[in-house]
Amino acid sequence: MSRQRVVIAGGGFGGLYAAKALRRAPVDVTIIDKRNFHLFQPLLYQVATGGLSPGDIAAPLRAALRGQANVEVMMGEVCDIDAGRRVVVLDSGREIGYDSLIVATGATHSYFGRGEWEHLAPGLKTLEDATEMRRRMLYAFEAAEMEAAEEARRQWLRFVIVGAGPTGVELAGAIGEIANKTLREEFRRIRPEEAEILLLDAGERVLPSYPAALSESAEKALIRLGVRTRVRVKVTAMDERGVAVATAAGEERIDARTVFWAAGVQASSMGRVLAERTGVATDRAGRVVVNADLTVAGHREIFAIGDLAAVAQGGKPVPGVAPAAMQMGQYVARTIRRRLEGAAGEEFRYWDKGSLAVIGRASAVADFGTVRMSGLVAWLAWLFIHLMYIVGFQNRVLVFIQWGFHYFTFHRGARLITGGK
Amino acid sequence: MSRQRVVIAGGGFGGLYAAKALRRAPVDVTIIDKRNFHLFQPLLYQVATGGLSPGDIAAPLRAALRGQANVEVMMGEVCDIDAGRRVVVLDSGREIGYDSLIVATGATHSYFGRGEWEHLAPGLKTLEDATEMRRRMLYAFEAAEMEAAEEARRQWLRFVIVGAGPTGVELAGAIGEIANKTLREEFRRIRPEEAEILLLDAGERVLPSYPAALSESAEKALIRLGVRTRVRVKVTAMDERGVAVATAAGEERIDARTVFWAAGVQASSMGRVLAERTGVATDRAGRVVVNADLTVAGHREIFAIGDLAAVAQGGKPVPGVAPAAMQMGQYVARTIRRRLEGAAGEEFRYWDKGSLAVIGRASAVADFGTVRMSGLVAWLAWLFIHLMYIVGFQNRVLVFIQWGFHYFTFHRGARLITGGK
Repeated sequence: MSRQRVVIAGGGFGGLYAAKALRRAPVDVTIIDKRNFHLFQPLLYQVATGGLSPGDIAAPLRAALRGQANVEVMMGEVCDIDAGRRVVVLDSGREIGYDSLIVATGATHSYFGRGEWEHLAPGLKTLEDATEMRRRMLYAFEAAEMEAAEEARRQWLRFVIVGAGPTGVELAGAIGEIANKTLREEFRRIRPEEAEILLLDAGERVLPSYPAALSESAEKALIRLGVRTRVRVKVTAMDERGVAVATAAGEERIDARTVFWAAGVQASSMGRVLAERTGVATDRAGRVVVNADLTVAGHREIFAIGDLAAVAQGGKPVPGVAPAAMQMGQYVARTIRRRLEGAAGEEFRYWDKGSLAVIGRASAVADFGTVRMSGLVAWLAWLFIHLMYIVGFQNRVLVFIQWGFHYFTFHRGARLITGGK
Repeated sequence: MSRQRVVIAGGGFGGLYAAKALRRAPVDVTIIDKRNFHLFQPLLYQVATGGLSPGDIAAPLRAALRGQANVEVMMGEVCDIDAGRRVVVLDSGREIGYDSLIVATGATHSYFGRGEWEHLAPGLKTLEDATEMRRRMLYAFEAAEMEAAEEARRQWLRFVIVGAGPTGVELAGAIGEIANKTLREEFRRIRPEEAEILLLDAGERVLPSYPAALSESAEKALIRLGVRTRVRVKVTAMDERGVAVATAAGEERIDARTVFWAAGVQASSMGRVLAERTGVATDRAGRVVVNADLTVAGHREIFAIGDLAAVAQGGKPVPGVAPAAMQMGQYVARTIRRRLEGAAGEEFRYWDKGSLAVIGRASAVADFGTVRMSGLVAWLAWLFIHLMYIVGFQNRVLVFIQWGFHYFTFHRGARLITGGK
């Protein structure tokens, strides 16, 4: 009898950890990703703000899985499924058969039906997004320096970040630090510390998924970095010169040449494909509603995990964060192994290890359930955990050194304006 | 009396070293570059081959010149000169007046009148060039892995490098190392070590500017890395599937999906502009023929330096290398200082410190005039000199660590396929 074929679509946290957990299983694994690398997304905002280089937070998938003889890495995009014949179809038209399929293609930005905003206010999901944000942010200071007219200069120095979740907070904090520390004394006509950084959110407070006390700590830390947070503010229109917002007081216009989007995510297109091909339900964000064992209704051989899966536990949805994706990947690998051994299945149990958001140097908030902290201790916890999980020993060393430099000098080594127009 | 205004066009080795050498001069310096960073070009091939990240070999100009109060950095492109009114014109239309002008805008690829080859065979001058080369090179291995047909697979695994000067040799050696060491055991259907790497040159031998004995050492080292060198071979045509070459034996076709260009350089467009605006002569490569004090005929206030300048010494042209550009920048700064002091001018004297070309790990050739070496000693000299001159202490540490990793593991941390189609 030939060995079971496991196909994994996506090499993010879910897919990579599933492949690794299948190391000793008697199966042949094919992991397919449109990129040749695994991306450590939690540090993407540091690439967007010039603190780290793209290479520091990416590990080639082939290198990450080199020692694992039962894994084959394939570069390509899974764009369709024939659940009856049990094959996935790549963008090249090639078909690959599976006995078990793990769909872990993640999520992308959501502009809530306003796709035309994407080029006006880029979001942060890929390395290309990050270098584009970096280009726009750094170029804005250069353009302000060259601008003679006072009002135009002010618009170049105004940065709007839409969405005050962890990504928005991290971006705003980093831009605040750049304006107030990194770029200090580098310009002759402008003072970078005059930059206005506005963090907008439609909700009641920054970091809405955190306890209220931590939201307050975060807001105070942001203010110290020169960030102005504005809540209960909804973006209603956008053009190249700024945004229009609706507030309790009415409509308002904010002129700004740089707008970043951190407001929403939606499942990648494989959510829709799975729905069409298997009849499974999706939620509002396009995520696939999965069973308690992360399988798709009617298909015990198809799993959806990570940001692509909608699964609730104790009445609360499992959040779309890296630890959840890793746990799902490992759980599915275990399930496949148990099935081969003829053992009974278990339900997926999400172990919430807590949440962390960084604001700036020596400043973060952490919610570990019973233990909540902010400031230096939270920041050290953040540092330690991120260094521990980043893939590849060399990356760990390089990131550590760059953080060390940054801590003492506020220096950001990857402040390059590349690509673009 | 107001202070002398010195305008420097270009922030490469010539421009940056001129600005730094004017630190204590009683002048106001404006340095203008279309990029916001100084690029350490001698290591560009390491970005193209995934050994280093773009940020490692680039230093923001503002950071490099931060402490220097008499320097203003401006991002923009100098595209015209009015030598009568003593102003330069930026791409934005803005005019900037000067008392002394240092034109240091460098060189670009030359396809010898076949500009249409540029997208078929990219050259290596900018960071974008480097990441594009990296993308094509890494993608070729991925495509070969996916290709079922034997002949097509072979074409994906054939790499042609046109031009066997230092850049061509460095590229070929690095690709050889990647195929034979770095990618080993990462693929399932192909063996990367089957890659064919062809280094072509129209001349008599590789590294034609080196002594013949060193050319021979280099060729042997390349052969050990799996590179096949072919001299007296001229590219006559090119398409997406390969190149046609003329050899002593006649016409020949080489099918290859990846072709890189390292065959020629020409002065940047400012050479032509200077010729039109001042009547100065240019040589075949578009370089400005300058006086012995690097000024342009009839304009003692306009200097051309670095790759843009054609200057001979002892009957031999000063080569277009980083040390020559640095020395010219420092010389011009000294000349400007001496003029302000009323001292007599001196001629520019190029001090040839020797040439170095690296082939692979622990393998290089060095020509220090009387002392010539190859192998490990030459490589250590290369290592030391490049680490010493790279701009920025953090860059030095990061490069050193990555080279350390690479030395022991052949690991290349920045093996990312980004951007592109």
